[in-house]
Amino acid sequence: MTRNEARARDAADPLRPYRDRFALPEGVIYLDGNSLGPLPRAAAPALSDLVERQWGDRLIRSWNEGWIDAPQRIGGKIAALIGAHADEVIVADSTSVNLFKLLVAALRHDPARHTIVSETGNFPTDLHIAEGAVDCVPGAQLNAVARDELDGAIDQDTAVTLLTHVHYKTGERYDMAQWTARAHESGALALWDLSHSVGAVAVDLNGAGADLAVGCGYKYLNGGPGAPAFLFVARALQDRLASPLSGWMGHAAPFAFADAYAPAPGMTRWLAGTPPMLAMAGLEAGVDLWLGVDRDHVAAKSAALFDLFAAIGARLGLECVSPADPAQRGSHISFRHPHAYALCQALIARGVIGDFRDPDILRFGLTPLYLGYEDVWRAGEILGEILATAAYADPAFSKRHAVT
Amino acid sequence: MTRNEARARDAADPLRPYRDRFALPEGVIYLDGNSLGPLPRAAAPALSDLVERQWGDRLIRSWNEGWIDAPQRIGGKIAALIGAHADEVIVADSTSVNLFKLLVAALRHDPARHTIVSETGNFPTDLHIAEGAVDCVPGAQLNAVARDELDGAIDQDTAVTLLTHVHYKTGERYDMAQWTARAHESGALALWDLSHSVGAVAVDLNGAGADLAVGCGYKYLNGGPGAPAFLFVARALQDRLASPLSGWMGHAAPFAFADAYAPAPGMTRWLAGTPPMLAMAGLEAGVDLWLGVDRDHVAAKSAALFDLFAAIGARLGLECVSPADPAQRGSHISFRHPHAYALCQALIARGVIGDFRDPDILRFGLTPLYLGYEDVWRAGEILGEILATAAYADPAFSKRHAVT
Repeated sequence: MTRNEARARDAADPLRPYRDRFALPEGVIYLDGNSLGPLPRAAAPALSDLVERQWGDRLIRSWNEGWIDAPQRIGGKIAALIGAHADEVIVADSTSVNLFKLLVAALRHDPARHTIVSETGNFPTDLHIAEGAVDCVPGAQLNAVARDELDGAIDQDTAVTLLTHVHYKTGERYDMAQWTARAHESGALALWDLSHSVGAVAVDLNGAGADLAVGCGYKYLNGGPGAPAFLFVARALQDRLASPLSGWMGHAAPFAFADAYAPAPGMTRWLAGTPPMLAMAGLEAGVDLWLGVDRDHVAAKSAALFDLFAAIGARLGLECVSPADPAQRGSHISFRHPHAYALCQALIARGVIGDFRDPDILRFGLTPLYLGYEDVWRAGEILGEILATAAYADPAFSKRHAVT
Repeated sequence: MTRNEARARDAADPLRPYRDRFALPEGVIYLDGNSLGPLPRAAAPALSDLVERQWGDRLIRSWNEGWIDAPQRIGGKIAALIGAHADEVIVADSTSVNLFKLLVAALRHDPARHTIVSETGNFPTDLHIAEGAVDCVPGAQLNAVARDELDGAIDQDTAVTLLTHVHYKTGERYDMAQWTARAHESGALALWDLSHSVGAVAVDLNGAGADLAVGCGYKYLNGGPGAPAFLFVARALQDRLASPLSGWMGHAAPFAFADAYAPAPGMTRWLAGTPPMLAMAGLEAGVDLWLGVDRDHVAAKSAALFDLFAAIGARLGLECVSPADPAQRGSHISFRHPHAYALCQALIARGVIGDFRDPDILRFGLTPLYLGYEDVWRAGEILGEILATAAYADPAFSKRHAVT
């Protein structure tokens, strides 16, 4: 594809108007929306209103003017993006904390089952939190195996499978319906981590028969740095599971101030403490932007951007670790390179922001709402120049930051 | 005290300049800063900078430009307000979630001890979370007793005492040094909930020998609605306790992406997921405002405001349930009244915002940074008028809101 061809594709892109709804910095090609989504323009006035009017002027009265039901309201909007009913999703805490709640609840669901089955190389917090969860349930254990050993690991002792729908490094995507059915065949619950799929690929939790899910607000949902996360519990399970983090906001009557805990009906029981309203407002602005988007357009453009970047990578001799088939991957593309860290830094110095994942992965988010074909074309040009001149060999680019 | 005398006290008040550092709405006397602190003027530009520059322009780079160490940095500032070392406090999650982490860790600390001892009528989330924590540790139990039975309840089986320093309804304050010593005498750890004391009364965790503490960011710290909370672990215990919420942000090397969890040294291990930076920025603005305040002035003015309101209450025949001795209470005053809910609503309709606590408590926060003597004097006038005319009997004031 030539630059002019890329421009023509952008001009014909039905998603092009969405780009103007983001405040993208000048001189930057942002290929890291899978790590931190950029600022929706609507987020700034939403935050100002939250701070100056709702907090500043209305003060405590705002709890009865839209704050107290924000977790359910925003959850209901996210539900529309993941094939769930509005009353099956709630916004709360972080992905890590929500994983803990659901894993402990799943381990307690059937006392005859003791094992969480997951994948080695899953996103670390999933495995770390699973370690913490099994320590909270007598007899429970975590069995993390390689992807090709997963089928054999799911058995009559499996309480719950913990799989990340789209892999954070490679972008590989599980067939959600198939693996949910596999869990159910052994009598286990299926818990999906949607952090790299919500807003990235089509998700149909109810269509797949999924039991439980968690997901991240700050990646493809563009909810702001460290935005609150969400969790999903299928209707049929809602009365049968309870949160180990039995905080007052999940109580059936929090303002009756009773000594004894009684879980609220529905999803409200998954709340623990008071929701962080500043962060909630950022998330809501990000989610609202998604509600009018045609997701077929997103899927088609994601595939096209991937193909373009894959062709550039092939031309530059880079080893692509992401699957070629769009149905088998998410919306990022990853390459393996021995100097991936320095290469990433050299790209950032040229205004192309992707990220590095230890030890040797260079990762680029392909986010159809605000990324154009010409952006990807131009990123490929700069990547080619850096490789051709070995500009990444500058020792300055090897200095490790706290966050890589 | 006459209105002119109240004005004279305000004019001579050394804390008077702090009032201008808050954006207080016109026509409102805000006596609910113990539930939601008002907006510090510095919070609005801090949030704008966070949103527009740090998120919008710097994007993912901001993680290496002040975000990743915000939990430790803000924790270090809070430490200065509670008699702790900077490396003993970290900001994370909510008070409820932090209580869970510390209670489970405390229950695991000495396998010969199984009991959390707490107080009936403690703030509900403390007891609710304690129920959840004991369910995560085999053999553990919660023993909540009345305050006058507490001494007898602490024994050789007590793993940890869970006490709220200042009671959310009555304002009663525990002698922290005395009750910490009592826990230690039986070999138990002492965990203090500082939600109604940080920024309200003098707190000296290390002076009292306290082991563990949690506290709230959105009350007297003025950190914004649902602001992140904090937790404290005394240095001597830091290597011996670990978090059951073993998320990646508490890992010793989160960006090495290892499968196995390894707790970070120091307080960092108490982090779980990615911190909500919008909410963190609000909290930091609130905490920064506190750093230059002379806390002796705060204590003296809190006592004087209390005396003024207590005299008004006595004149109006209200039953005060808060202790008269400043050393035995926090910075709010509570009255018992059979029509407390309607009275609270009638006051709000006149611009005097206090709050109601089920079943019959009318509660007023006395926050020396932004509340003046004339405010309290005027609130007393309005309260007197409402009582004299039984204006609270209007049925409109009995309609219950979701948040009371």
